[in-house]
Amino acid sequence: MVDASVGEAARIERLVVFGVGLIGGSFAAALRASGNVGRVIGFDRDAANLEAARKRGVIDEIGSDVEAALRGADAVLLAVPVGETRNILATIAPYLASTTVITDVGSTKREVVAAARATLADRLACFVPGHPIAGAEKSGASAARADLFRDRLVVLTPLAETEPSATARVAAYWRACGARVRSMTPEEHDALFAAVSHLPHVLAFALVDYIAARPDAALLFELAAGGFRDFTRIAESSPVMWRDICLANRDALLAELAAYRAELERVMALIERGDGASIEALFDRARAARQRYLQKS
Amino acid sequence: MVDASVGEAARIERLVVFGVGLIGGSFAAALRASGNVGRVIGFDRDAANLEAARKRGVIDEIGSDVEAALRGADAVLLAVPVGETRNILATIAPYLASTTVITDVGSTKREVVAAARATLADRLACFVPGHPIAGAEKSGASAARADLFRDRLVVLTPLAETEPSATARVAAYWRACGARVRSMTPEEHDALFAAVSHLPHVLAFALVDYIAARPDAALLFELAAGGFRDFTRIAESSPVMWRDICLANRDALLAELAAYRAELERVMALIERGDGASIEALFDRARAARQRYLQKS
Repeated sequence: MVDASVGEAARIERLVVFGVGLIGGSFAAALRASGNVGRVIGFDRDAANLEAARKRGVIDEIGSDVEAALRGADAVLLAVPVGETRNILATIAPYLASTTVITDVGSTKREVVAAARATLADRLACFVPGHPIAGAEKSGASAARADLFRDRLVVLTPLAETEPSATARVAAYWRACGARVRSMTPEEHDALFAAVSHLPHVLAFALVDYIAARPDAALLFELAAGGFRDFTRIAESSPVMWRDICLANRDALLAELAAYRAELERVMALIERGDGASIEALFDRARAARQRYLQKS
Repeated sequence: MVDASVGEAARIERLVVFGVGLIGGSFAAALRASGNVGRVIGFDRDAANLEAARKRGVIDEIGSDVEAALRGADAVLLAVPVGETRNILATIAPYLASTTVITDVGSTKREVVAAARATLADRLACFVPGHPIAGAEKSGASAARADLFRDRLVVLTPLAETEPSATARVAAYWRACGARVRSMTPEEHDALFAAVSHLPHVLAFALVDYIAARPDAALLFELAAGGFRDFTRIAESSPVMWRDICLANRDALLAELAAYRAELERVMALIERGDGASIEALFDRARAARQRYLQKS
């Protein structure tokens, strides 16, 4: 894992965005705000969303013909559900110039890489898979904000075949959006995010489902305090998106779930035998780690 | 479980508070702000904290002699770690008048009840165990706020021996602080809070400990997004307080941990066999439940 190289120009004369939602729209808006984009053409399944994006100036033009839109494009951003990646790549592949870089924003990377290998042929060298670690409760172009990626991390997962100059260009775009950029392999990415993102989401969904299925659910939720609310906030994430993540990253996620279950069983054994000193030591380590690493932000 | 009866006067001419921290101090401050308290005498292990409480007007007087302080007291509030309850009850028991009600704010109730049964003798009828579902990141008298309990829930767990009028008086005090009041048995309380409070705390401590113990911990925490932060916020709670809760409510907590582990294993089986429809249905149920019950606040 290395930091993506610096120095490449961030300017995009012509940008094509597939999926002008919160992420895709904010990418375009951030480049616009920093003076780094010329013309933005947007495609989206939702016509009303596209119209809102155009009215807000997030995009300049609603795309109609893919071939025409891609002609002369410097960059293509895919900001669609991971499951749609393959279809869109297959659709655009015939019209990609050798000077066009393609990137995406999917939460898992191995599946995206497989889709690219299956569809992009010799344009694979210009594909730079990416994952901005940002989001918000809201969605859609109307929620797009030029500062969404400011001081956030973007992980790029170039393939062995990816041209280093393509990776450098995509890194420069994200830096122009105010983000920090790290590179790692798709496999590293999926293993690491299985631990810090996919695992806690599954744990939170499971807890809320467990409580909700009980006959005294209404009373339990009434008694729940702020800690429970914080803990379960991510259980309001999109069920479809998280279903896809669970399936796309199944092996890494199952490994994390098994390891977490083993940790839980260690804690249960400590509680079972009333080992107060070890319980306190474990809680203390956890608190110290969280304070050390996460209290900055 | 019934709603505690209404109509009792909330006025306390003389209040003695043991533990003038965030909770004890806010109780006194809220009664003061609503004109429902005369004189407040505070005891605390931390002399500087007591001085701060007096300077802020949270208490009128720093207690020195327990017998003198309790003479003519209408109410005693114990807002100390659960482990200290028994000692304080034993200390005050000889000086309690039949007109003095005693209440506490501990997070588990069966242990407090056992301490009261062991120490209060015929004054047990005036003891009304309580648990305000409120808190904040800060602690100490300097963090006390008159509005801490506004629109929060307070659970009272009177014993069979508790005089109904004592319960009604304590309920009236909390309502004067702006809180809603529910009554249930100590056993019901401990079983319900094992699910909605103790379980998620243990899950969060365990996750952070699991991540922190890995050789790539620094990288993992760097990649962690807002969802991870929300999920693990409660892992910054006091290790000593949560150790005591785990020990005091061991059986109920272990039952919840085992039930949650079973739920987790059901989810793992769905992911293992790639059952996308069932995964989505489970996530959907969880999201719908959280939206229905918790989005109000």
